[in-house]
Amino acid sequence: MNEFASITGRFACEVHWGDCDPAGIIFYPTYFRWMDAATWAFMASVGYEPQRMREEQLAMPLVAADCQFLSPAKHGDRCEVRSRIARFGGASFLIVHDIVRSDGTQLAKGSEKRVWGRFVSGPGSAMKSQPIPETVKALFLAK
Amino acid sequence: MNEFASITGRFACEVHWGDCDPAGIIFYPTYFRWMDAATWAFMASVGYEPQRMREEQLAMPLVAADCQFLSPAKHGDRCEVRSRIARFGGASFLIVHDIVRSDGTQLAKGSEKRVWGRFVSGPGSAMKSQPIPETVKALFLAK
Amino acid sequence: MNEFASITGRFACEVHWGDCDPAGIIFYPTYFRWMDAATWAFMASVGYEPQRMREEQLAMPLVAADCQFLSPAKHGDRCEVRSRIARFGGASFLIVHDIVRSDGTQLAKGSEKRVWGRFVSGPGSAMKSQPIPETVKALFLAK
Amino acid sequence: MNEFASITGRFACEVHWGDCDPAGIIFYPTYFRWMDAATWAFMASVGYEPQRMREEQLAMPLVAADCQFLSPAKHGDRCEVRSRIARFGGASFLIVHDIVRSDGTQLAKGSEKRVWGRFVSGPGSAMKSQPIPETVKALFLAK
Repeated sequence: MNEFASITGRFACEVHWGDCDPAGIIFYPTYFRWMDAATWAFMASVGYEPQRMREEQLAMPLVAADCQFLSPAKHGDRCEVRSRIARFGGASFLIVHDIVRSDGTQLAKGSEKRVWGRFVSGPGSAMKSQPIPETVKALFLAK
Repeated sequence: MNEFASITGRFACEVHWGDCDPAGIIFYPTYFRWMDAATWAFMASVGYEPQRMREEQLAMPLVAADCQFLSPAKHGDRCEVRSRIARFGGASFLIVHDIVRSDGTQLAKGSEKRVWGRFVSGPGSAMKSQPIPETVKALFLAK
Repeated sequence: MNEFASITGRFACEVHWGDCDPAGIIFYPTYFRWMDAATWAFMASVGYEPQRMREEQLAMPLVAADCQFLSPAKHGDRCEVRSRIARFGGASFLIVHDIVRSDGTQLAKGSEKRVWGRFVSGPGSAMKSQPIPETVKALFLAK
Repeated sequence: MNEFASITGRFACEVHWGDCDPAGIIFYPTYFRWMDAATWAFMASVGYEPQRMREEQLAMPLVAADCQFLSPAKHGDRCEVRSRIARFGGASFLIVHDIVRSDGTQLAKGSEKRVWGRFVSGPGSAMKSQPIPETVKALFLAK
């Protein structure tokens, strides 16, 4: 996979009461929920909205995910997930996410390695990886 | 809908760290997650395992759900959801759940009104309600 | 409890990929997660932000919750939870929520009965119900 | 941090309907929820149950977490998280998790880097990292 000069997606989110644990800070799987939602929002921002993804039977199954937790978040914190494509491979891509609080503090940074896949016969059926079209890659290219 | 003499399903669960909120007690939507899982387990116990539900394109969409919270649960509490069919209608049914901790304390009680439905053309497609077969109702009848 | 002429709180939310189930529609406990977050946002809108709630050791434990599911929501649907105080009791209150999609379709309606409580000695300690101050009730009164 | 000859913790879990997404497979943050619960269960298995952790004001905040997804899991799959301490540092430790389905298929493998911490003045207050007692390390040592 090659380095890629990516645009940045921005996904607004907030730490809710139920996202926190008895320590009074964010329960860490919440960050992965945010990264997943941020990836879908990033796709939507370049024209691949959820409805289009469904109609074209596209999906983005995960190969791996990781996150470093830099500073604890609390209930009520307003945050933004800033997402970029770090690398495109033939049928996979690496998306990196910075999670930043409204006061500028970076709370976490993570990445997801995903495959560009298509359902063989509709949602719930098997998925097959697909070569990522050059037209799709171009949508994420910084001008 | 008529009253129904139902067998009782039993679903074991436990309050995990991430199920609790900053008050140190269970975050209430967790009970609804449990009730949903308990309903699927109840179906499985009479022969309708998830795989069979998928193959027969069956689903159980919700019409309504409610819960009363009787005593707070804490991280580490071991619980059981005890489920019964309270009523069968033509295409819908009411399932009631008692959530009891291992020390015998009742933590919550709730209900779900669900429809017996079938996907028109596979998961993700529209669902149509179906008359509940008498053979299905019989599976839940207390002997 | 008496009927109450309440202002309306508005909480924006969206159906994420991970909020949906294999039927391709919203997993119902998501609505309760939204109602909880909407209640906290409603409190914040009248000056009781999460930080203040923490500092004053206030909490709003649940007595009961219910929801009717009127129309299925799909991944990508943008929604709003519209919340009102239906009744104030001495130490409890009933908050009702309408969940409406951006096209105007009402997806669900629910309610939460909550207690106005204070931690005896900080988060994680026992909670005691408190008379709801008249000054708090007045904050929710429609002008 | 040094390599450590660890006992293995075993945490049973199951893929529930609401743990899956519209692709009909497990929503990946579920694996992190399981790894967190498995870590708490591993602690409990050596005598540090949730209640004791609370009473001694101990917590295990995360520094980092990662997971590789090897094979998709479906609704109804019964699984086991097998956990080992890979390394103990002064105040931190690395715990690795294998997630295996009942048919022996490895679904995922991940790790969590955690700090051994103590709340300065009860849950919700700040946490301070603590040297991990040698008596605690010894509890995880394979005989």
